[in-house]
Amino acid sequence: MSLAESVLAGEPLALARLLTQVENELPEGRLTLDELFPHTGNAHLVGITGGTGTGKSSLVNRLALHYRKPPEGTPRKVAIVAVDPSSPFTGGAVLGDRVRMGDLSGDSGVFIRSMASRGSLGGLAQTTAAVTQVFDAAGYDIIFIETVGAGQSEVEIARLAHTTVVVEAPGLGDDIQAIKAGILEIADILVVNKADLAGADKTERALKTMLGLAHPVKKNFLSHYPANSGADREVEAAIVWLPPIQRTVALDGRGVAELADAIDHHAAHLKDSREWSRRDRLRLEFELEAMLTHTLWEEFRARVGDDRYAEVMDGLIERRLAPGEALKTLLKD
Amino acid sequence: MSLAESVLAGEPLALARLLTQVENELPEGRLTLDELFPHTGNAHLVGITGGTGTGKSSLVNRLALHYRKPPEGTPRKVAIVAVDPSSPFTGGAVLGDRVRMGDLSGDSGVFIRSMASRGSLGGLAQTTAAVTQVFDAAGYDIIFIETVGAGQSEVEIARLAHTTVVVEAPGLGDDIQAIKAGILEIADILVVNKADLAGADKTERALKTMLGLAHPVKKNFLSHYPANSGADREVEAAIVWLPPIQRTVALDGRGVAELADAIDHHAAHLKDSREWSRRDRLRLEFELEAMLTHTLWEEFRARVGDDRYAEVMDGLIERRLAPGEALKTLLKD
Repeated sequence: MSLAESVLAGEPLALARLLTQVENELPEGRLTLDELFPHTGNAHLVGITGGTGTGKSSLVNRLALHYRKPPEGTPRKVAIVAVDPSSPFTGGAVLGDRVRMGDLSGDSGVFIRSMASRGSLGGLAQTTAAVTQVFDAAGYDIIFIETVGAGQSEVEIARLAHTTVVVEAPGLGDDIQAIKAGILEIADILVVNKADLAGADKTERALKTMLGLAHPVKKNFLSHYPANSGADREVEAAIVWLPPIQRTVALDGRGVAELADAIDHHAAHLKDSREWSRRDRLRLEFELEAMLTHTLWEEFRARVGDDRYAEVMDGLIERRLAPGEALKTLLKD
Repeated sequence: MSLAESVLAGEPLALARLLTQVENELPEGRLTLDELFPHTGNAHLVGITGGTGTGKSSLVNRLALHYRKPPEGTPRKVAIVAVDPSSPFTGGAVLGDRVRMGDLSGDSGVFIRSMASRGSLGGLAQTTAAVTQVFDAAGYDIIFIETVGAGQSEVEIARLAHTTVVVEAPGLGDDIQAIKAGILEIADILVVNKADLAGADKTERALKTMLGLAHPVKKNFLSHYPANSGADREVEAAIVWLPPIQRTVALDGRGVAELADAIDHHAAHLKDSREWSRRDRLRLEFELEAMLTHTLWEEFRARVGDDRYAEVMDGLIERRLAPGEALKTLLKD
């Protein structure tokens, strides 16, 4: 049996091996991924982002537990991809969090993968995309992509998801952390976690205000759809999703079932409004472009050679050659 | 007189016109920039980064004022490039801040340019680099690049600078904001602004602790230098720069002269240790690579054509074609 076949058959060891190959960007990983590609496109990708101290890891664990032991219906397979692109200082934090996974350990229907930052952030987004494809092909129904909501890079990773959940918590300073990152614009669901703490009302109010400000962005987003004569209020209502605000207490599980409902509801909305396939297309476009850009650059550098490149760089540094001239010289070679 | 010549002659209107061309990425801007390139490489690029509420804009204004009216020596020409790559919500914030520039208005030795985020962040870093080159050629001695220290993108922009100043202030929550962004690793000078507020001691202590943690990074940085037999403690001491912590009150100007001294001191250190030319080289390498990658991609897309590209994308979306196959198909064309 090939590695791809073993992964499709649900073998955990094969899955782990492929994930390692993909994370290390090995050529054989790429080939197996291509073999598995026809089996992808079924999983619901859910991005969960929030600052340190919001309790988002615990919340993801609770959600996984909920989907594994639903009050009704059949259990779903859950994958968690925890991405930590922050500084080397906090490199171990995500792995540390995962020690508290007692309730889920031993359940083969939950697979957790922590990814640390290696090299460029663009590279991390690419690798994360590849890892979610592996889980997708392996039959995982819901894939959580968990990121620290600290900047543009996280927004980029969150774009991989069909549904983006932004987690806040009371008592983390006056500002709503998400404001800084501009991540609120891409939020499909907002969560006030630690909702049992004093200040939860204040946090919810702040989020509501922010949502009001974000509304023009939603309108702008609508303008991407062709305004044909048949479009009316009803069509618009089907397309627009106004992010609900959910309150949760990850510690004891309060509000987690309702959050899971909101996530499922959003998936249904995406499919009804054809946003699902639009996001799928965007994701694959992004992936292809990143692969092509990378390959074009590598080929170019191999063609030019290190000596020639260094020569031109010296010209630049000594101000004998302007950047535009350096560009032309190298492209002519 | 050509536009480049007018800029070299110090004409403010020519300067403003070129800046607009460069910001809008017009081809004529690129050509003029190339013409000016031999005149660049003299300015001291100083990155100033810090979160909202740290008062970094006021501090930059104070520094500009100091360099314009120094207690001794000749006044220097100062340019301020204020970059705000955050969400569209705060797009106008930087411009708003600048209204408080009373003390500097009317002085042709200070030029302020606000840049809002347009398109990709990578693009913003490129445009910022180009704008600093314009000021450099126009004879500005010190160019401040002011960014909101909120994420990886700001770190990228700060990398443009010879000297990176990270500004903190008391009372902005328990965390030191810079930790999240991992920006402390690239800080050359740390500032506790609003040092007259209660809590300034606590902020300074927190920064000191962080610097202790950052020390391994400094050591790692050293390892990039070839360990030749002649290298000894003295050489090492000349290379290593331990970031000083300066206290300032931008409101009344306390500590600003000392901060300016630290900035000048760092420039001298960079030149002594040959870091100045190393950073210059890195910056130009980054710029050339970004230009090449962009051009290679544009040429490739023109070669392939929209119809063919859409065809391959459809194959991807319908899962008939795997990403690796799509890559090969397009590159073969």
